[in-house]
Amino acid sequence: MVSITFDKHTSGQFNAELEEARNHLMEMGGIVEQQIEIAFKSLVNVDSELASEAIQMDKDVNKMELKIDKETTQILAKRNPAATDLRFIIAVSKTVNDLERIGDEAVKIAQQAIELSNDGAGPQGYVELRHLGEKVREMVQSSLDSFARLDADSAFEVMQQDKAVDLEYNTAVRTLVTKMMEDPRTITRALNVLWALRALERIGDHAQNISENVIYLVKGKDVRHKKLEKVEETVNR
Amino acid sequence: MVSITFDKHTSGQFNAELEEARNHLMEMGGIVEQQIEIAFKSLVNVDSELASEAIQMDKDVNKMELKIDKETTQILAKRNPAATDLRFIIAVSKTVNDLERIGDEAVKIAQQAIELSNDGAGPQGYVELRHLGEKVREMVQSSLDSFARLDADSAFEVMQQDKAVDLEYNTAVRTLVTKMMEDPRTITRALNVLWALRALERIGDHAQNISENVIYLVKGKDVRHKKLEKVEETVNR
Repeated sequence: MVSITFDKHTSGQFNAELEEARNHLMEMGGIVEQQIEIAFKSLVNVDSELASEAIQMDKDVNKMELKIDKETTQILAKRNPAATDLRFIIAVSKTVNDLERIGDEAVKIAQQAIELSNDGAGPQGYVELRHLGEKVREMVQSSLDSFARLDADSAFEVMQQDKAVDLEYNTAVRTLVTKMMEDPRTITRALNVLWALRALERIGDHAQNISENVIYLVKGKDVRHKKLEKVEETVNR
Repeated sequence: MVSITFDKHTSGQFNAELEEARNHLMEMGGIVEQQIEIAFKSLVNVDSELASEAIQMDKDVNKMELKIDKETTQILAKRNPAATDLRFIIAVSKTVNDLERIGDEAVKIAQQAIELSNDGAGPQGYVELRHLGEKVREMVQSSLDSFARLDADSAFEVMQQDKAVDLEYNTAVRTLVTKMMEDPRTITRALNVLWALRALERIGDHAQNISENVIYLVKGKDVRHKKLEKVEETVNR
């Protein structure tokens, strides 16, 4: 992991605190990545045991959220960070919030797996689900990597993928709705898959948010609600 | 509006900056409340013009988010707030985030109104939708009121309402799914209403988050992911 050039501090302790906040953020990111993977697997295999595991993991995610928020608040109170340090603290706080919400979406996916399992549905190779699941997991991973490496370019690449995810999501929804109309007996199951698709799409949005946080941290510009061309200008500056 | 007892500052300018951040937060809250109301009305009346209005308003909401985030960052950089002041800044930042996401959910509701209108669906008195819509709007309003009045008790009351909203949401979803199965021709329209219901439920979650921010600000305790009984203890302490 490339190290952040934090502002020079008289206090080595301050540096250590910033490093620690970053390490905890990356740890939380690792748990959330795992949680998505397990939740997704539980859905595709309709495996309620795996699903319970993903739901259980949310406790750890929530604990990490509280812990890191406490750490960053203490740094704000004690160290009066400015410039890069302050942007770092803000980017960490916002990213923690996105990771926690990704965890919530993973729980929703796992809940659909449990409902499918309760309905006695067998594993199905929902093609659309697989595609979207892969893409979205990649986005989360890349956005966290770009945070670890402070890489605004790769953060921007993640942002560019969100449109493709939205497109794929819309196609998947349309396919499912057509199936529902053709065979109304599948409505309940199709709805479970629909909710899971929506959760995946939301995870993609959060990965995009994390990427925006990285660009804010590295470039010092808030690129939220900006057109992609504008973001590109900021990244290349 | 009852005034916050900010910590005593040597700088009157600092006080003015805190007041301004609060006023802008309340202004943003006002816009979002209006946006929910218009989006909701557009859905129940299947009025695509009103829906467009709600979608347009999101630009103002987003602008307010960027503006307030900039203000709080500047206060952090220049004023080194501590204790209540720091909690206030953190609570404002988190609430801004929730308000922005409520705005996004209002847009989703409005988009369903437009799709219903494109399908030529006439206005319908979706009973469940109305109930949930009323409850959720009340929650948002009460959570913002509790922020303005720094009232942890009324914030806690909002948190208690979320369970009822979830229950009502689940009942509404079940009713709609039954209707879909009985008459598959209604599937597309029912799905539009389903997405809107989900958006309403999410708005309720954000109102709950705002209430948690208020309790954090007033009581100095982070009550996220805590059981309601634990939160009640904190509020009554």
